[in-house]
Amino acid sequence: MLAKPLTRKHALALDAADPLASLRDLFELKPGTIFMDANSIGPMAKAVRQSAEGLLDDWVNLRRRGWSNRQWLDMPSRLGDAIAPVIGADPGDVVVCDSTTINQFKAVAHCLAINHARSVILSQSGNFPTDVHVIQGMVEASRGRLSLRFIDTEEEAIAAMDETIAVAALSHVDYRSGERWDMKRVTEAAHAKGVLTVWDTSHSAGAVPVALKASRTDMAIGCGYKYLCTGPGGPAYIYARKDIADAVWPALAGWMGHDDVFGFARDFAPHPGIKRFIAGTPAVAANELAKPLLDIWPKIDPEKLCAKHKSLTDFLIALLDQECGPLGVEVTSPRGHERRGGNVSFRATGAGSVVEALVDQGVISSFRKPDAIRFGVSPLVISHQDIHEAVARLKRILAQKIWKQPKYKKVSV
Amino acid sequence: MLAKPLTRKHALALDAADPLASLRDLFELKPGTIFMDANSIGPMAKAVRQSAEGLLDDWVNLRRRGWSNRQWLDMPSRLGDAIAPVIGADPGDVVVCDSTTINQFKAVAHCLAINHARSVILSQSGNFPTDVHVIQGMVEASRGRLSLRFIDTEEEAIAAMDETIAVAALSHVDYRSGERWDMKRVTEAAHAKGVLTVWDTSHSAGAVPVALKASRTDMAIGCGYKYLCTGPGGPAYIYARKDIADAVWPALAGWMGHDDVFGFARDFAPHPGIKRFIAGTPAVAANELAKPLLDIWPKIDPEKLCAKHKSLTDFLIALLDQECGPLGVEVTSPRGHERRGGNVSFRATGAGSVVEALVDQGVISSFRKPDAIRFGVSPLVISHQDIHEAVARLKRILAQKIWKQPKYKKVSV
Repeated sequence: MLAKPLTRKHALALDAADPLASLRDLFELKPGTIFMDANSIGPMAKAVRQSAEGLLDDWVNLRRRGWSNRQWLDMPSRLGDAIAPVIGADPGDVVVCDSTTINQFKAVAHCLAINHARSVILSQSGNFPTDVHVIQGMVEASRGRLSLRFIDTEEEAIAAMDETIAVAALSHVDYRSGERWDMKRVTEAAHAKGVLTVWDTSHSAGAVPVALKASRTDMAIGCGYKYLCTGPGGPAYIYARKDIADAVWPALAGWMGHDDVFGFARDFAPHPGIKRFIAGTPAVAANELAKPLLDIWPKIDPEKLCAKHKSLTDFLIALLDQECGPLGVEVTSPRGHERRGGNVSFRATGAGSVVEALVDQGVISSFRKPDAIRFGVSPLVISHQDIHEAVARLKRILAQKIWKQPKYKKVSV
Repeated sequence: MLAKPLTRKHALALDAADPLASLRDLFELKPGTIFMDANSIGPMAKAVRQSAEGLLDDWVNLRRRGWSNRQWLDMPSRLGDAIAPVIGADPGDVVVCDSTTINQFKAVAHCLAINHARSVILSQSGNFPTDVHVIQGMVEASRGRLSLRFIDTEEEAIAAMDETIAVAALSHVDYRSGERWDMKRVTEAAHAKGVLTVWDTSHSAGAVPVALKASRTDMAIGCGYKYLCTGPGGPAYIYARKDIADAVWPALAGWMGHDDVFGFARDFAPHPGIKRFIAGTPAVAANELAKPLLDIWPKIDPEKLCAKHKSLTDFLIALLDQECGPLGVEVTSPRGHERRGGNVSFRATGAGSVVEALVDQGVISSFRKPDAIRFGVSPLVISHQDIHEAVARLKRILAQKIWKQPKYKKVSV
């Protein structure tokens, strides 16, 4: 527990003791700007510039030989192996491909195919919209066979589990409040009733503990471009327990999920394990931009990373209370780190305008209607000094009512 | 008709008369190497390097503000509008997104949802494997409701159309032989029996005439990274007639296909028209690399482009006959251009080794088992002189039996 009031000296001391402080040097950062938006797009590794150049040179000089002379086809697996530790998965059980939306479809459809005697899909009413849309699209296409049941809380989810439910497709972290669910507890409750689980870890992977294997979840998906840093619109990931992967064909069957890729057999035969979920041609360009992650994620101790995230966000919440509480800021994220996701959410009057004013003050965060501000904290690059400075700037905007200037009327995403 | 025997002088004369000769200057070409593999990966525009740099700068400097300050979200539509003329579609009826495989799923599932009283899907036995795999995955998931019926020829397809068939999902061009089907004729036969059509134009779009709107096809898909030049693993496209797009929800429903993107409504409501097929977050990196196409495709007269392709491939076939026919080469692509796709295929003894020897001679082509060599001809960058030179190098390899050297035993993709 730090002595109050918290000051910049505390930040300096915490940074000095940070075993991961040097990770920051691997990333290209804009001087003076504090990016608290890793819940939207994570930072760029310096080595990405060289990867990009290599990709374009290969495009010009190799063309189709890139398929054989470069590891373009292996990247979904290699990237999956690289991020596996930070999501608590074994190498070989994760592939990086397509979008979160597409992977949500693959995962939910897979569980529905396994649990085909059941017809209900369970999800959170406050789940990220696209996760819900995917399910609604499946329900619509089923012409009455499937239905979607909403719950709001972890307790409701556990109470709702029954033999009608085929799959519970849940977000690990609420994208607005930043509240994290107990994946293991809910998964156990689901399995007790024969319900399969799909967890979306978009707002937890790479920031807070995610233990896919230990939770015994059947499948999981997650965004690549947030804390995992695959770049703007970069590929997402999909995970399946081996027995679940092999239980049925993938719903999106394609040549890259074939047991004999480039065998050009007419008839589909699924690749054993997770690779069957690589449907189409890999997104080579995006994968090559993500290539530096092959050297970064495997070197990071997930426990240290999550400990740093805890330290950063504990410090952030304490500072928000101390500095901005009197100015009307109310932290809405859970107080206990075991209940928090990657971002810290708080309420403020004029939140949309405050977020715009923060941009001009060099602090990039995000706004969600009606009054939520989210600071997405990447433990790879954010320091306690950044946190201290970001809160100082926020305080100035609130204390001096800078956000009331007409130019900040615009509401941002 | 050119006077025989054909010589380099003919090539020079044809190039001098080519109204699109200057297009070549827009692309970065490797001196001395002739890339006849646009059927695998098309050439790179010079301006891609600048686009890539801009993307990385935006990643570093804008992060989440890229969503609002750049046109990342509009790129699927803008790229779709750019390529629309060359596939005979109206702007607003095409979006660029996901892979060919994923788009095949969206298109076939959409037609199945519309024609839900029917249960048969018709396709070619020799269709590109992933197109078939997608259908087989759907059949498997349907647990007996759906079935796949194969045909081999255009005549067989027309004869097979009946009231049991929901959708005919066909390739416009056979990826091995290069044979092009009559899209309008087959579509008319399908419609006469209430069968909906999905055409895969991966091996025709950007090289030979594709008239989606005039053919009245219901939907179409195609690879982006071949003749359309979206880059290695670049995004594919999907087209739908307006009435077809609006008839039912998309099977892959996601937030980017919502009527109110970034409205964050829980419940899905499909965007009118083609945009409903943009499921997840756009592949920003890939789209930004494809950005130069926004300035290239709209300036190209599709008729001139296809006329050039005809001239190039007529010249190629005549030269293959003249120079390599006596050495055992047999052109298997149709003789009439109206029956050809983007590539010219021919048989040669030791084809796999010949293709490898060609690489060492600076000619990049592709091999398909058992004995097919394919020259994919991009009319954007290939000249008649290139064709002449490529055939001269092929002739040398065959005449001097260079392909029999042990180092060429490897079989390439």
